[in-house]
Amino acid sequence: MNQIADMFQNYDVTGGPDFGRKHLPKLRAEMAAAGVDLFLVPHEDEYQNEYLPDCNERLMWVSGFTGSAGAAIIGREHAVMFVDGRYTLQVRQQVDETLFAFTKLEGGGMASWLRKNVTSGQVVGFDPRLHSPAALARIREAVALAGGTTKSLDVNPIDAAWDNRPPAPLTPVSVQPESLSGKSHAEKRAEIGQSISDSGANAALITAPASIAWLLNIRGSDVQCTPLPLSTAIIDAAGHVQLFIAPEKLSDEVRAHFGNEVSVQTEDALTDALKTLAKKTVIADPNTASAWHVDALKDAGAFVKSTSDPIALPKAKKNAVEIKGTEAAHIRDGAALTRFLHWLDTDAQSGEVDEIEAATQLERFRRADTSLRDLSFESISGAGSNGAVVHYRVNTGTVQKLERGSLFLIDSGGQYPDGTTDVTRTVPIGEPTQEMRERFTLVLKGHIALATVRFPKGTTGSNLDALARHPLWQAGLDYDHGTGHGVGVFLGVHEGPQRISKAPNKIPLEPGMIVSNEPGYYKAGEYGIRIENLQYVTKARAIAGGEREMLGFTNLTWAPLHRDLIDTDMLTREERDYVNDYHGQVWEKIGALVDGDVKLWLKAACRPL
Amino acid sequence: MNQIADMFQNYDVTGGPDFGRKHLPKLRAEMAAAGVDLFLVPHEDEYQNEYLPDCNERLMWVSGFTGSAGAAIIGREHAVMFVDGRYTLQVRQQVDETLFAFTKLEGGGMASWLRKNVTSGQVVGFDPRLHSPAALARIREAVALAGGTTKSLDVNPIDAAWDNRPPAPLTPVSVQPESLSGKSHAEKRAEIGQSISDSGANAALITAPASIAWLLNIRGSDVQCTPLPLSTAIIDAAGHVQLFIAPEKLSDEVRAHFGNEVSVQTEDALTDALKTLAKKTVIADPNTASAWHVDALKDAGAFVKSTSDPIALPKAKKNAVEIKGTEAAHIRDGAALTRFLHWLDTDAQSGEVDEIEAATQLERFRRADTSLRDLSFESISGAGSNGAVVHYRVNTGTVQKLERGSLFLIDSGGQYPDGTTDVTRTVPIGEPTQEMRERFTLVLKGHIALATVRFPKGTTGSNLDALARHPLWQAGLDYDHGTGHGVGVFLGVHEGPQRISKAPNKIPLEPGMIVSNEPGYYKAGEYGIRIENLQYVTKARAIAGGEREMLGFTNLTWAPLHRDLIDTDMLTREERDYVNDYHGQVWEKIGALVDGDVKLWLKAACRPL
Repeated sequence: MNQIADMFQNYDVTGGPDFGRKHLPKLRAEMAAAGVDLFLVPHEDEYQNEYLPDCNERLMWVSGFTGSAGAAIIGREHAVMFVDGRYTLQVRQQVDETLFAFTKLEGGGMASWLRKNVTSGQVVGFDPRLHSPAALARIREAVALAGGTTKSLDVNPIDAAWDNRPPAPLTPVSVQPESLSGKSHAEKRAEIGQSISDSGANAALITAPASIAWLLNIRGSDVQCTPLPLSTAIIDAAGHVQLFIAPEKLSDEVRAHFGNEVSVQTEDALTDALKTLAKKTVIADPNTASAWHVDALKDAGAFVKSTSDPIALPKAKKNAVEIKGTEAAHIRDGAALTRFLHWLDTDAQSGEVDEIEAATQLERFRRADTSLRDLSFESISGAGSNGAVVHYRVNTGTVQKLERGSLFLIDSGGQYPDGTTDVTRTVPIGEPTQEMRERFTLVLKGHIALATVRFPKGTTGSNLDALARHPLWQAGLDYDHGTGHGVGVFLGVHEGPQRISKAPNKIPLEPGMIVSNEPGYYKAGEYGIRIENLQYVTKARAIAGGEREMLGFTNLTWAPLHRDLIDTDMLTREERDYVNDYHGQVWEKIGALVDGDVKLWLKAACRPL
Repeated sequence: MNQIADMFQNYDVTGGPDFGRKHLPKLRAEMAAAGVDLFLVPHEDEYQNEYLPDCNERLMWVSGFTGSAGAAIIGREHAVMFVDGRYTLQVRQQVDETLFAFTKLEGGGMASWLRKNVTSGQVVGFDPRLHSPAALARIREAVALAGGTTKSLDVNPIDAAWDNRPPAPLTPVSVQPESLSGKSHAEKRAEIGQSISDSGANAALITAPASIAWLLNIRGSDVQCTPLPLSTAIIDAAGHVQLFIAPEKLSDEVRAHFGNEVSVQTEDALTDALKTLAKKTVIADPNTASAWHVDALKDAGAFVKSTSDPIALPKAKKNAVEIKGTEAAHIRDGAALTRFLHWLDTDAQSGEVDEIEAATQLERFRRADTSLRDLSFESISGAGSNGAVVHYRVNTGTVQKLERGSLFLIDSGGQYPDGTTDVTRTVPIGEPTQEMRERFTLVLKGHIALATVRFPKGTTGSNLDALARHPLWQAGLDYDHGTGHGVGVFLGVHEGPQRISKAPNKIPLEPGMIVSNEPGYYKAGEYGIRIENLQYVTKARAIAGGEREMLGFTNLTWAPLHRDLIDTDMLTREERDYVNDYHGQVWEKIGALVDGDVKLWLKAACRPL
């Protein structure tokens, strides 16, 4: 393990071709025993988490692939991996090409492969807990059209084949106090119960652990980077909750916190509990519930209402207490980041510092704040050409030095009890080229357009996305990722339902929603640029002549933008004013928290352009 | 009739409360005979046209309401009208409040009203040809939940009750020559057949007359403003077409044009033809096919594939010949509009000209081009406060004078054999106020942003819409309509599937698609501003430093923007360059087509800002 003492992030090379070599034969033996010719292995686990507990890293176990999305289909003699454009290089390094064929995930995925490759009479096995109802319906149709049959397996053959499979995590649950959540779980349960009732349903099956954590004001640490207790719940229209969770995770304090309208049962009890929902209308979100959940409800005689998790939207609209906590967390986080940016601008200018040292240094600055509970994701610490790899994760095999004449991109965040942060800064090591400055400034113009936009009620992130891209587009450039994602409060750093991207999205931006604002530019093989602040939706202040109530964004993230990368001549007066005002606020909020050289450096970094 | 001799547009006050007073009792007698307690009257007819033939103006016949969208539910003793926000004033003027209650269409429409108001045992009648399958499913569910039953009626009781109902139009079909369509119907049929085959279907039921007109290179004049022959068709995967159309419409020349891969049958023969599709997979577009069509296919034992009309997208992507024709039509149309703008800037400055005289004058200038076949829609001729009524139709009851100190908004277009135009200009009568100039300039800035944007493949109109609104948003303003719609070539002035609006839309903009660019600003009770040009998608020219193949727009509409409304200080250098370049091209293209005073005026109108 390349775990650095007392650090959250490790830099191991994980996965690799050995996994498939060792594990495929074992899986195939179990497949034979289960009577299936093909077995489907999605990346997702039953909780649809961004981060999987070790015991659910099934795709990595069978193939050696560690990307955050992908799938495999394992046959008796052949196997195929599906990965998206981000991972075409990585899959070749991690997965044995003699054992797996590689296919693009974008070409219709498993269903379209099955349609073409299943032969008559073949049996395709699957674990119904790992597929969404819609995905499974496509798979079933494809297999049927190809003349095969599908077989739902009670026991996942990977779990059966996996020697020394890690146990499910059993970390203690903690209470998220009302001083940080702003609302008791009784109030939240009553509101969600009312919304279930208003929608004409009797209950909702909640399968997203983050929704349960928000609803019951609890947190845990079953997975890395997101403070979740893994669990499932049913909430009825009266706001009563049945929580299905390993009892070992619950202290007396937590049980007392629940009171008597939240009953606790083991996870195994869910099946029987679903059976009591016969003739009830039960909401199950088709994006988070699995086919197993939906089938179990239908088998129980429930009427399944396939609509969004009723907690997703209320959770996204932060209350005043959550915003206040998030603002406080961001100021402390900004001070840590500022110390790091000073370090980058001084010690790390030698050309001898590497990406792991840089990320470790940043984690050290963050950990100086003892309230830090975890990183909110593994820092993306990308020097030079690694900065152009959008979802780069540095490890001991890929690490590069921050060389003079290059750019360094650092995307990172922390989990604090009062808020979750996510920030990206790009800094020059040595002297940047004029091209770097021009492209940074185009990215900055887009960032400013999205930071300052005023928009009417009903506007979605799909509508706003182009504002952040427009300056790049006019220069013949673009970036291949979304512009903004929702962020939780001491919860997931990526949450819905709102987002800012090209993809069609029907969720209007509403006051209290936190989103990132992170346009970028990536020159493959050379450098990457991204500027990311978090911001939240507020009512825009009224202005002279304005007729409509407009919404806007209030900034959360405070750390200087590197002035050597800004070509001031490319900015309008308003854009320059924005940068100067932003830096003035950085100095005001962060200046008091730093001292000595860092303070002097910050003052210079924040002087007007 | 207030029909002005030899003019396409008339200015009659149509509809009105007398319609309901006279016709409701007749309809109710037929409803009693048919055994229904309630009867549903949507605005749509069986062809889902923007313009209805007189015989299908059923909603107007029963209520007196002439808006372009709406519905009614007629009970034995009461009736309710559904209209959207645009028509809340108009419905009060046209419909007798003692006979009809008024309800907002936005509140869930007919289905949600039925859920609340149908009483146990009531029978709700409907004409299945007038409802989409999805809308009818919602209605059926609502009625069932309320304890009622639905009854599909073979004969629409309005048609039975309607004395002297106008006959269905039987205008002659003409051939759209390949010199204008750019592609033979044999080629088009082969391509569409291939796409049907590629999608795994055997045939498609085409119920949109505009799709049939495009496919077979034919035009007609069964409805006003859109050169359509009303008809239905089935096309199979081999590209063979069965056309269902009144045979009286077809000359020998048209029959010869069809050749032997297009068979012609009467409209009545459709039912039997659908019966031959047993066990076939047949595409029916749920947005244009009616519940009758879908049920008839299912009854025939066909597998219905609910996907878009396979003609919609190919029709939207104009070929080079269509673009060339459209460009030529726009230049002639621009000359007519220029003569009109000169007239507005001179004769119409008296304050004594009214909206009908203005629209008539414009039609006269257009008709001077003998190739004009029709207007492409009824001109919106809005003086002063009428300009703020977005879907204003001037009639003898609403007509206002173009008063000094006001703005005049004119949105109009023509149908020419080589192209369809649609253009809006706003001009001051007398001296505009500074507020008018500022708001016009904000609208202009949005228009320019959308005219000049470069964007990558895959971008939709939902992504681009905000660029046109951004300058208004920043000033606390907005407009309540889409920014752009698709436009046909000597076909519908509003066509899909692409559009530029806030609404989620999954259709990427592709080369050859024509869209309008028409941001606006409306000050209720005072004035309206809109600037509309048509433009089409092209590959953007490569620029220095650009890395990606980008798309952009090429302008089609040529007529000066009124310089007295432009506050040059509010424009960036690039925006001013755009206006000057645009005016330079107007002068170049239109200058040669006008002479005398008009030419002198145009030269001045087009001089650099």
